Amino acid sequence: MNKKLFLGIVGLGTVGSGVIKSLELNSETFKRKYGMEYEILGVSASDKNKSRSIKIDHYPWFDDPLSIPDIEKINVIIELVGGEDGIAYDLSIKSLKKNKNLITANKALISKHGKELAKISDESNLFVGYEASVAGGIPVIKTLREGLLINKVDKVFSILNGTSNYILSTMNETNRDFEEVLGEAQELGYAESDPTLDINGYDSAHKLSIINALIFSEFPKVSDINIKGIEKIKLIDHNYANEFGYNIRLIATSSLEEHKFYKEVSPMLVKESSSLGKINGAQNIIFLHNNENGNLILEGEGAGAGPTSSAVISDLVDCYLGTKLKFFGESYENLSLGSSTLDTKERCYYFRVFLSDQKGAMAELTSLLSKNNISIDKIIQKGDTHLEDEKSSTPVVMITYPVSIGVIESVVSEISGTDLISMEPIFLPILKEV
Amino acid sequence: MNKKLFLGIVGLGTVGSGVIKSLELNSETFKRKYGMEYEILGVSASDKNKSRSIKIDHYPWFDDPLSIPDIEKINVIIELVGGEDGIAYDLSIKSLKKNKNLITANKALISKHGKELAKISDESNLFVGYEASVAGGIPVIKTLREGLLINKVDKVFSILNGTSNYILSTMNETNRDFEEVLGEAQELGYAESDPTLDINGYDSAHKLSIINALIFSEFPKVSDINIKGIEKIKLIDHNYANEFGYNIRLIATSSLEEHKFYKEVSPMLVKESSSLGKINGAQNIIFLHNNENGNLILEGEGAGAGPTSSAVISDLVDCYLGTKLKFFGESYENLSLGSSTLDTKERCYYFRVFLSDQKGAMAELTSLLSKNNISIDKIIQKGDTHLEDEKSSTPVVMITYPVSIGVIESVVSEISGTDLISMEPIFLPILKEV
Repeated sequence: MNKKLFLGIVGLGTVGSGVIKSLELNSETFKRKYGMEYEILGVSASDKNKSRSIKIDHYPWFDDPLSIPDIEKINVIIELVGGEDGIAYDLSIKSLKKNKNLITANKALISKHGKELAKISDESNLFVGYEASVAGGIPVIKTLREGLLINKVDKVFSILNGTSNYILSTMNETNRDFEEVLGEAQELGYAESDPTLDINGYDSAHKLSIINALIFSEFPKVSDINIKGIEKIKLIDHNYANEFGYNIRLIATSSLEEHKFYKEVSPMLVKESSSLGKINGAQNIIFLHNNENGNLILEGEGAGAGPTSSAVISDLVDCYLGTKLKFFGESYENLSLGSSTLDTKERCYYFRVFLSDQKGAMAELTSLLSKNNISIDKIIQKGDTHLEDEKSSTPVVMITYPVSIGVIESVVSEISGTDLISMEPIFLPILKEV
Repeated sequence: MNKKLFLGIVGLGTVGSGVIKSLELNSETFKRKYGMEYEILGVSASDKNKSRSIKIDHYPWFDDPLSIPDIEKINVIIELVGGEDGIAYDLSIKSLKKNKNLITANKALISKHGKELAKISDESNLFVGYEASVAGGIPVIKTLREGLLINKVDKVFSILNGTSNYILSTMNETNRDFEEVLGEAQELGYAESDPTLDINGYDSAHKLSIINALIFSEFPKVSDINIKGIEKIKLIDHNYANEFGYNIRLIATSSLEEHKFYKEVSPMLVKESSSLGKINGAQNIIFLHNNENGNLILEGEGAGAGPTSSAVISDLVDCYLGTKLKFFGESYENLSLGSSTLDTKERCYYFRVFLSDQKGAMAELTSLLSKNNISIDKIIQKGDTHLEDEKSSTPVVMITYPVSIGVIESVVSEISGTDLISMEPIFLPILKEV
C-alpha cells in the first residue's frame, strides 16, 4: 500500500516481543531498503505486567484486544495470541471487517478458519499474511505461493513440529525415555507447559493442512488427516529403529497419487542418512517432491522469537509493498475441501509388541500375522531386553513387507484382546521415498 | 503493474523454449491465480531454424534482437541469451532505456554489470528480475530479498554449479577419471560443449558475487574472489578424501568475520555426511549460516528447462503484481564494492603430491613442510598406487593442521621447482563448519 503503517499488536509473548524488538532495531534499515515507515499505535496481551524482554510502557496499552481494531488510524493488526478460536478468531474477523490488514502466526486459526479468511482476503484489497504460521524461519508460504509457480509438487514430506522432533532426536541421542526428555524440553522452554498439541501431532496437522492447500488447492479439515502422536514411542523403539538403519521422526506428509489424496501425520521410520532422518533438535524441514523438476528441500529453524518474528516482518514488508496474492495461491472458490478418506497405500511397517514369556507365544503371533497375510521381512527378539515394569514379557520387533493400514490395525486389535502380549503394540510406517 | 504483459523473448535455447512452453501451458492458471494475462509480441535467437521443443512460427520473429525493445507495445523483455557482454548487455540496457521491464537468467551479466543495472532499476519504476540467474529451481533471490529480512546471515556455503558437481560426484561414485566423466556429461547435456566457465569455477563465482551482494550489501568483482576450478582433481583425490571421511565438492563461500570479507570458490573437502557432502549430480545447495537464528538450507535443481523457467515465470508474476524492491535489497548507492583481499583464514588442507621414487624423498618433503611451519595431522602413502603415466613417483597425501593459504602456496612453489615431485601438487581446503 506504500503508505505509513500504523500497527496494532496483540499478544506479547516470545514472538510478539521479538516482533517489537525487530521493529525497534530495524526501523532505519526498513526505511532505507523499502521506504517502509511504521508506528505502533496499540498493544494488548493477557497480562500487562508480565516480565518481558522489551519495554512496552511507551506504546498505548489496551486491556481489551478487540478494541484495537476500533482505532481508526491503525491499518495493520498483528495477531500473535494463538488458539483456533477465542480472541484470535474474534480479533482477526473484526480487524478485516474494520478494513485493517492482518498478519498472524496462528496455524490453528488458519487451519480451522482458513476458508473464511481466504474468502474475505480474496474478495477485498486487504492483505492477510500468515508466513509465520508454518515453519517460522523457513519462507515456505512465500516459496509455495510465489517461487514455485509452474513446478508441480506431487508429494511433500516434512517435519513441522520442533518440540516433538527435539524429543525424538534427544531420546535417541541421549538414550533416555520420553517422559524424562519431555520434562527437560519443558524446562528449557522448547516445550510448552501444555505440550499436548505438539506431541499428539495436531500442531503438525494444522501446518500440513495449510501446506496442502497451497500445493494441491485442497484444504483439508484436521479430521481429514490421519494423525498419530509420539506419546507411545519408547526408548527401545529408537534403539531397534537404529539397528535397522532408521531414525524415528514425526513426519507430516501429503501426496496426490492417481487422483487420490493421502494426508498423514505420524511417527515414521526414516533412513538415518536421509535429509529427514538427519534433522535433529527443533529444526524443521520441508521436502517438496517433484517428478519433473527434482526436489526442493527447505530446512531451518521452525520456531523461536528470531525466526518467527522474521516471518512476521516479511509479511509486513509484503503488506507495505502491496504484494497481493490469493490467500491460498488459488482463489478460495476453487479450493476443494478435504476428501475424508483416511486410507493409505500399502507400505512396510515397524511393528513392536511385548510378547508374553509363555511357550508357543512367538508361534502364535507369527501364525496370526500369516493368517492376515502380513509377511515379515525382518524380526528381532532379544531375550534380555525386558522393560523394567514388564518382566514377564519380551519385546519383539518386526519389519513387515508392504501391507495396508487396515490389515495392521485389525491384527493389532485382535492381539490386543489376548494374553499373548502385554502393553499396547505400536506400528510405525517406514518412509522409503526420501 | 497489473496490466496485460506484452513480452519480447530473446534467446530460445533450453530455458527460452521452457519459458515459452510454460507460458503456453499455464495461461489459464496464471489468469485465475494472479489475474495475469500476456502475449508474446516478439522472439529472437541466433538461429531461427534450429530444432526446438516448441513451435515458434506463430510468434513475430526478429532477426535483430536489439530491434525488439523498439516495439512500442512490449512492456517486458526476457533476456535468455547469456554472456556478460554482447547482445545480452546491449539488449538489457536498451530495454531499460526504452522503459521496458527486464527479466534475465544471466548471472555473468549481473555479476559484471550489476551495479549499473541496480542503479537504473533503483532509480526508476522498472522491474528488473534475475531470480533465474542463481540456482534455477531454488528461489534464493526471493528468499534473501524478501524472506530473511531481519535474519543476519554471517556465512554462506554453497554448491552453485551443477555441471562441476555432477562431474565430481560421478567421478567419486563410478570411480572414473575427470576427462571420461566430463565427456559423458557433455553427451548427456549436463555440460556445455564449452564447459570452461563451469569447470574453472567462474560460473560459481558469478553467482556467489550476486548472493554476496544480497547478503552483505557488498558487490565484489569476480577478481575479488579467490577462484580455483576442478580441472586438477584426480580420481585418486576422491579415493583419499573418502578414506578421511570427506567428499570433494566445488564450494562457493563468503563470510563476514571480524569486519573482514572472505570470498572463495574452490574444490573443498566436506564431510561425507554433511548437507553439502551429500549433494550429488546436478543439485545445488545454499547453506545460510546464522549465529542467532540457526541455519537455513535450500536445496534443489540448479539448472535445466523446468527449474530455470519456473524462476523466470516467478519474476514475471512479481513484475505483474508490481513487487518493486531494491535490486540488491539495499540501494545501489549503499553497496560497497568488493574489497580486494584474497586472504583466507588459517585452516586445514588436503595436500597431495606425487613424490619421486628416490631415497630420502619423504624426509626431504616433510622437513621442507616443517621448516615452513606446516604441521601434518594425517599422512597416507601407499606404495602401490602409482598413476599409469607416473610410474616413477608415488602419491603422498597429507591433511595439515590449520595453516594460511600463503604458506601453502609458497611451499608448493618451492617444491614445484625441484625433482622431488612430478606433476603439480594440489591443495584443497577442508571445510569443517558444515
